[in-house]
Amino acid sequence: MKNQKRVRDFGISIGNMKTGNYNSITDVPGVKVGHSTLDKENIKTGVTAIIPHERNMFKEKVIGACHVINGFGKSTGLIQIEELGNIETPIILTNTLSVGTAHEALVKYMLSVDKDIKSLNPIICECNDSYLNDIRGLHVKEHHVFEAIENASVEFKEGNVGAGTGMVCYGLKGGIGTSSRIVNIDDKNYTVGVLVLSNFGKINDLIINGNFVGEKIASKIKEKKTKNEGSIILIVATDIPLSSRQLKRIIKRVNPGIARTGGFIGHGSGEIAIGFSTANIFEHNPNENILNMKILDESKINVIFRATSEATEEAILNSLMCSNTTTGVDGNTIYSLLDIFDINSLTNC
Amino acid sequence: MKNQKRVRDFGISIGNMKTGNYNSITDVPGVKVGHSTLDKENIKTGVTAIIPHERNMFKEKVIGACHVINGFGKSTGLIQIEELGNIETPIILTNTLSVGTAHEALVKYMLSVDKDIKSLNPIICECNDSYLNDIRGLHVKEHHVFEAIENASVEFKEGNVGAGTGMVCYGLKGGIGTSSRIVNIDDKNYTVGVLVLSNFGKINDLIINGNFVGEKIASKIKEKKTKNEGSIILIVATDIPLSSRQLKRIIKRVNPGIARTGGFIGHGSGEIAIGFSTANIFEHNPNENILNMKILDESKINVIFRATSEATEEAILNSLMCSNTTTGVDGNTIYSLLDIFDINSLTNC
Amino acid sequence: MKNQKRVRDFGISIGNMKTGNYNSITDVPGVKVGHSTLDKENIKTGVTAIIPHERNMFKEKVIGACHVINGFGKSTGLIQIEELGNIETPIILTNTLSVGTAHEALVKYMLSVDKDIKSLNPIICECNDSYLNDIRGLHVKEHHVFEAIENASVEFKEGNVGAGTGMVCYGLKGGIGTSSRIVNIDDKNYTVGVLVLSNFGKINDLIINGNFVGEKIASKIKEKKTKNEGSIILIVATDIPLSSRQLKRIIKRVNPGIARTGGFIGHGSGEIAIGFSTANIFEHNPNENILNMKILDESKINVIFRATSEATEEAILNSLMCSNTTTGVDGNTIYSLLDIFDINSLTNC
Amino acid sequence: MKNQKRVRDFGISIGNMKTGNYNSITDVPGVKVGHSTLDKENIKTGVTAIIPHERNMFKEKVIGACHVINGFGKSTGLIQIEELGNIETPIILTNTLSVGTAHEALVKYMLSVDKDIKSLNPIICECNDSYLNDIRGLHVKEHHVFEAIENASVEFKEGNVGAGTGMVCYGLKGGIGTSSRIVNIDDKNYTVGVLVLSNFGKINDLIINGNFVGEKIASKIKEKKTKNEGSIILIVATDIPLSSRQLKRIIKRVNPGIARTGGFIGHGSGEIAIGFSTANIFEHNPNENILNMKILDESKINVIFRATSEATEEAILNSLMCSNTTTGVDGNTIYSLLDIFDINSLTNC
Repeated sequence: MKNQKRVRDFGISIGNMKTGNYNSITDVPGVKVGHSTLDKENIKTGVTAIIPHERNMFKEKVIGACHVINGFGKSTGLIQIEELGNIETPIILTNTLSVGTAHEALVKYMLSVDKDIKSLNPIICECNDSYLNDIRGLHVKEHHVFEAIENASVEFKEGNVGAGTGMVCYGLKGGIGTSSRIVNIDDKNYTVGVLVLSNFGKINDLIINGNFVGEKIASKIKEKKTKNEGSIILIVATDIPLSSRQLKRIIKRVNPGIARTGGFIGHGSGEIAIGFSTANIFEHNPNENILNMKILDESKINVIFRATSEATEEAILNSLMCSNTTTGVDGNTIYSLLDIFDINSLTNC
Repeated sequence: MKNQKRVRDFGISIGNMKTGNYNSITDVPGVKVGHSTLDKENIKTGVTAIIPHERNMFKEKVIGACHVINGFGKSTGLIQIEELGNIETPIILTNTLSVGTAHEALVKYMLSVDKDIKSLNPIICECNDSYLNDIRGLHVKEHHVFEAIENASVEFKEGNVGAGTGMVCYGLKGGIGTSSRIVNIDDKNYTVGVLVLSNFGKINDLIINGNFVGEKIASKIKEKKTKNEGSIILIVATDIPLSSRQLKRIIKRVNPGIARTGGFIGHGSGEIAIGFSTANIFEHNPNENILNMKILDESKINVIFRATSEATEEAILNSLMCSNTTTGVDGNTIYSLLDIFDINSLTNC
Repeated sequence: MKNQKRVRDFGISIGNMKTGNYNSITDVPGVKVGHSTLDKENIKTGVTAIIPHERNMFKEKVIGACHVINGFGKSTGLIQIEELGNIETPIILTNTLSVGTAHEALVKYMLSVDKDIKSLNPIICECNDSYLNDIRGLHVKEHHVFEAIENASVEFKEGNVGAGTGMVCYGLKGGIGTSSRIVNIDDKNYTVGVLVLSNFGKINDLIINGNFVGEKIASKIKEKKTKNEGSIILIVATDIPLSSRQLKRIIKRVNPGIARTGGFIGHGSGEIAIGFSTANIFEHNPNENILNMKILDESKINVIFRATSEATEEAILNSLMCSNTTTGVDGNTIYSLLDIFDINSLTNC
Repeated sequence: MKNQKRVRDFGISIGNMKTGNYNSITDVPGVKVGHSTLDKENIKTGVTAIIPHERNMFKEKVIGACHVINGFGKSTGLIQIEELGNIETPIILTNTLSVGTAHEALVKYMLSVDKDIKSLNPIICECNDSYLNDIRGLHVKEHHVFEAIENASVEFKEGNVGAGTGMVCYGLKGGIGTSSRIVNIDDKNYTVGVLVLSNFGKINDLIINGNFVGEKIASKIKEKKTKNEGSIILIVATDIPLSSRQLKRIIKRVNPGIARTGGFIGHGSGEIAIGFSTANIFEHNPNENILNMKILDESKINVIFRATSEATEEAILNSLMCSNTTTGVDGNTIYSLLDIFDINSLTNC
């Protein structure tokens, strides 16, 4: 984001809706994102934290929903989101084999925040960075999770930072990307923001805003990662009043966004979407037995579907744009899109 | 119900919660039930209609949820209930091969109620009455569906009436049964009502309030239906303010109620629960973009779970108590529980 | 198909896999498709039947799977497909309000085929053709279903025929479309075929093979259907040996295909995929207790995912290419894509 | 098990099917169970490991399935079981806040077993032992997980051992329990085994083989845990040839078994069933593209459903029978069933 060239900076606008101020998931009021990056020699990994709000998440839960596009993945916490429709911790992203470490660290963090917690549903999501990272070395430690949470802010880096440090997307360097869209309801502006951890796709399939650039780029790379593995994690945030059922419908609309960048939902690709709405906060111990909540009239939901799809597509492209060519474990090198392809050559913008 | 001896009339109380006035799904204000019964010679079938409220159901939808316990069944409308969390028609019960006829009839009924309808989600549920009924004769006609709807009232018959006419439950005559429980929240009484169409279970497995009576009853019947097929449909109604997610959790608690009568969820048993709450009505075309709704604080939900389980268990037993010995197609005879077993001999009440 | 210009006839190839002989779902050996078309004045509707094989479907069930993309739809039979992983009838497509009629007709057809049937799971899928068709007139009758089944053959028409007669896709005339892909495993050719009933999308969103043609086309149409309603039904057939779990994974890959034509999975769009594999036939009453089946090594499944997505995208485009400008109820007119747009002007092919 | 009095030792037989040799999940050939117990002062917790087979689980995966009864739980690995239908690690049970630690430990264990692993789906299940255990102390360490795996054997203790050390079931001391049933197919004996980690239920609701003993027992306990929280984890093992779809159907039949001990599936009760079949082993990298597998003719599945329900009910009762009165954190005491109730007084056996 800050000082990074993103897809719009090349004149490429995805869809036709207005973006938020930062064109970021953090345009949703209260949402912050932080990284802890491990980037030296054959260690290319890290942690990214998404903070729905900065108060006590356990005591003030946000409406939540999840959607498993392809379940070849190891994310934790989804069962309870599905049952209760809420989220009670920050969301932590890291590599596949460090899920347990991140889980334990998030438990410790929340225990330090709240003295009453005896049960907790930590949300940890992951992608596999083993093409560039010595994943078997288990280099992510507890303090990296604490750092990511502490680093959380409205402005944050995209690309090969945090959990995105070692990720590979369409055979190119991927990682963290974000985008947002503004939805106007009753003359009030609301925001839909998407953050992705991109680590999926085959190079030949890449589409940039309708341009089938994959084959051309593939021809430029001699040794390439050909296995269509990896994953994508998608975090959708909004301040629109929604029920968890409505939110689940909304986050399913990340699918068109992924598909339009060229994805076929590969067998080995754990594709998981998690969403939250900050508009209805549920207290852990409310005073009332019957609660009031506000939800959207469902017949007005299409514009939010569109916003979600557009922001997803743009977030994936931003994750490519903001990443740098990286050499990691076993001497494997993954190129940055911008290092290998003249983005200004695109005609279909 | 009216003039019928039910399980409580034999001194058997299921659980410890208070029942509603009629101990019936119709204790939920506005809910009505009607039958159309086909009972002559080898035709033992019919239609039962459950009416959530008597206004225009399409224009004033109720919160809805469904739960598939075992999907060897042919009920229609569940996909949309799951997606949108509402119900926009009466619920029609009939035999397996008459689902299409009932579907068409319900479409015609709703077209007559509302001139704007061009799309509609009819809810039709079924059990298979082919042991007693000439099911291949397709004897249910459109007018039977209309009749069942027109007959709907607060007081209605249980046992071998309506869709229950030819059903077999635990090798005994089953069919329609109902029960209700009162839940007090903030000094206000709410009702949870359950109606079952019972057509499942193996005779040897029957449990009445903890008494393993099945083997004893089985020994008294020479020729018996031994295949553990059939199904059970369970309709759960309430006036408690709930989201569709909460309602879905609640209707899953029919499971303990079924199990305590001896059910093992047989392979061929289509076991489907559908629930609705009349507390939040969603207009087809609301004036507002952001809607207010009331929901229950989830930490208070356990008493509703218990109410659902208790009412389910009692509704199944009532379906047995209220049924008469019946001889149908192929000369097959199914006995009434009360004709073959001295219910007063039970010790564990 | 026969004598119809399809998308490939304009030099537009979707993806890079080989098509089958007819580039049709009927390239899967044994599969046939038939129509019954109602097309006069304000009646624009019909029935399409997909026949997995021509033997007794009830006695020789095919492996089946279903996937609900957006459940604002009224298809029947999905619950049992999900539970048992098989399909035991032809698949019938028709309009939303005629589902019951088609259900009853399919029951009657199957009763005539097999004297033992007392329970049956009819698969009926639907889209809403009310923009062009007098849907409230309920013009589809039983005999139309029988006709569609009888008309089934390897070669069949696409576009506004059968269930597709009154459908609208991206504001243009849509309906039936099909395509196929060849997958080679162990030097043997297998086929993945897709048939769609297309009735979804907003005109401005249409993408043809990466070309954002929607806005341009929209500008040419004065009065247009603007509501993003409708639906899409997708039938996926294959002769590859699969478990129902594998098949379910495969049919989820219709999603990228839909998205690449411009779809956002609209709120009112019932999007349902149903798949079957003819490679493992399950007898209704097998002689053995332990059965042998063949399945694919899952690590080889990616090529089938790609085949499904490519064939879906092409089938949707074919449904547009093969349809004619149609004026129906209320004088509503929907243009054929080819009547309003010079397809040869596309650059991104 | 060894030297422990179990429910059958009191003349109480659940159901009518034959048990296996040890009446244990380890009657399934190859299955082993091990514990690591932390039991001193206010630390009452531990780890239990279930080993499907003793070869390399990652290279030789077993067929797997999972079923979420109530998702107020934090188990990991379920998404991938659902997607791929297999299990590639031992299953680890522990307390709620130690899931992350166990996850990390299981990753390390598997990395030590197999040099190729770069991605892994660890299965960790949990219940909340905070009434007796200082759960916020996070006393479970990595070496406890290694110990539990190393301790795995065919004979193992039930009750307050391993993960069961601090669990509370129906207000009484619960924990680990197991039971099995024999199923004969084609003159060959197969086994269905169930292991539970029991930590659910309200004391007043306890039913022992149809006897409503809960109220009587409740009256004897002055200070009791009244909150109906906790959870139950159920592991179902078998050597019957099954597809993952069939296995999923089977493990759903733990529900009647739970219900017959008095459970209502409480709001706060994370109730999760995980199953595996050792009959079809899937190699990580098979030589063939098309694989042979054996599955059960589905019409023979009812006896397996019954076996699962019976073994579940008995395993829960065994977890109560084999536990000792325990005083833990905050001086909380939970009584053993046998210490507080004369089991020989039961009439309905």
